[in-house]
Amino acid sequence: MSAPKQIVIVGLGLIGGSIAKALKQHTGHKVYGIDQDEGALLDACSCGAIDGKAGPQELREADVVYLCVYPQGALAFMEEHGVGLKEGCIVTDTCGVKAHLCTGMERLAAAGRYVFVAGHPMAGKEHSGFAASDPSIFVGASYIIAPCGAPGWAVEVVEGLALDMGFGQIVYTTPQRHDKIIAFTSQVPHVLACAYVLSPRCQEHKGFSAGSYRDVSRVADINDGLWARLFLDNREALTQELDQLIGDLGRFREAIAAGEEEPLRALLRQAGDAKRENG
Amino acid sequence: MSAPKQIVIVGLGLIGGSIAKALKQHTGHKVYGIDQDEGALLDACSCGAIDGKAGPQELREADVVYLCVYPQGALAFMEEHGVGLKEGCIVTDTCGVKAHLCTGMERLAAAGRYVFVAGHPMAGKEHSGFAASDPSIFVGASYIIAPCGAPGWAVEVVEGLALDMGFGQIVYTTPQRHDKIIAFTSQVPHVLACAYVLSPRCQEHKGFSAGSYRDVSRVADINDGLWARLFLDNREALTQELDQLIGDLGRFREAIAAGEEEPLRALLRQAGDAKRENG
Repeated sequence: MSAPKQIVIVGLGLIGGSIAKALKQHTGHKVYGIDQDEGALLDACSCGAIDGKAGPQELREADVVYLCVYPQGALAFMEEHGVGLKEGCIVTDTCGVKAHLCTGMERLAAAGRYVFVAGHPMAGKEHSGFAASDPSIFVGASYIIAPCGAPGWAVEVVEGLALDMGFGQIVYTTPQRHDKIIAFTSQVPHVLACAYVLSPRCQEHKGFSAGSYRDVSRVADINDGLWARLFLDNREALTQELDQLIGDLGRFREAIAAGEEEPLRALLRQAGDAKRENG
Repeated sequence: MSAPKQIVIVGLGLIGGSIAKALKQHTGHKVYGIDQDEGALLDACSCGAIDGKAGPQELREADVVYLCVYPQGALAFMEEHGVGLKEGCIVTDTCGVKAHLCTGMERLAAAGRYVFVAGHPMAGKEHSGFAASDPSIFVGASYIIAPCGAPGWAVEVVEGLALDMGFGQIVYTTPQRHDKIIAFTSQVPHVLACAYVLSPRCQEHKGFSAGSYRDVSRVADINDGLWARLFLDNREALTQELDQLIGDLGRFREAIAAGEEEPLRALLRQAGDAKRENG
């Protein structure tokens, strides 16, 4: 366990709330929260997820700041508060798209005394807000770090805190590679869930559905403001990945429409190989 | 509990094996099995999932026959054995596509003394074979019945057995409606899983993926012979449903490519509404 630090979490939603709870559960650090919603702050205080609301002093003295808000909110917060942070304070974020954010963050960090390390905890669920926060979603999950030029000691602190919180592995990458792969692993499934439930047959699914309907549609009811922003901030990679999927769906569609078994079986075997190889 | 019956299960794979186990667990019926694979028969005998292999006599005396094989296998079995079944024997199946099968089955039944009731247990998992069979997959699930002109007493027997096995609800429908909705609830998610893992980014997903990758790709490694047949037997409805999905994905793709937040948020809200309304 590292020496006790003063940690400020900006945004006590699903992720920020879960980080607060995980830090209080597994470390001896002091954890303070900032949220526009006084109710979320009160709930977090009441259940012991934070030691209190972070005022100007707690922020000035913070060793680590977690930005758990929308990308534009994270940039706006640093624009306002970055210069007030102390020498060597580590600022890290949890945003789902990195390249756009990191460019802005690196520019802002140049004007302050703090260092910025980009992070992305690969965990979530289909509900949002502090009430949905739950540190168990982190257990065994990946924590992605894009160092963005930060010094090694700062990156190690972010890594250590992630392991303390229960994450199972730390993955290092660049903001650009992150966004390209995340378009496939996370953004496409969310677009897919939303497109899937728009079928008129969705209204008749009850009694005719089992696990596969549930799995594909699980994340169809998401926060439209947050996800629209994440999709648009990763527009290029996501559009490319959607084109890939639409193209591959079209190959299955053509094989099925043609009514010939062997080409269809070949496609299914190719998919089975990919799934077995990549897990 | 109804009077003890003699039940023959043709095909001891995932579904046939699970039915055998569920019947032995929850009823006092005699259960016999037929499978081309002697190993599966032996395994089923050894673990008490069946009372023994069904020979010609067990089949002649059967009160109920479950056809748990591919659609063409079910038709071929009835072609060969249908006329030997006793007066009032109930033949039912578990195939995932119904219209094509029911047409053939109704034709064959006219030449025999048995009655045919089409059935589809809405349960499964991503593995196949007797080793994967597990009666708990049925608990609370839907059991779809298409009576196909069978008399009420026969339909009631199939329904009663499904409830004995632990199914949570019985849904009545026609083969045509079944196939149309199943194209959406089950077949599209399977095509989708297969198309999804064909992306070159799939090879890099490790460390960058969480629940949504796992959910969408779960059924990407499926039995190509079985599923190609199921897809082709439901070609028309499935092609239509894939066109619907490809079209809706295209709407999201265009909104994202256009880079405008409001039309994208409107689509996301529409999806959220559909998911909340339909569950």
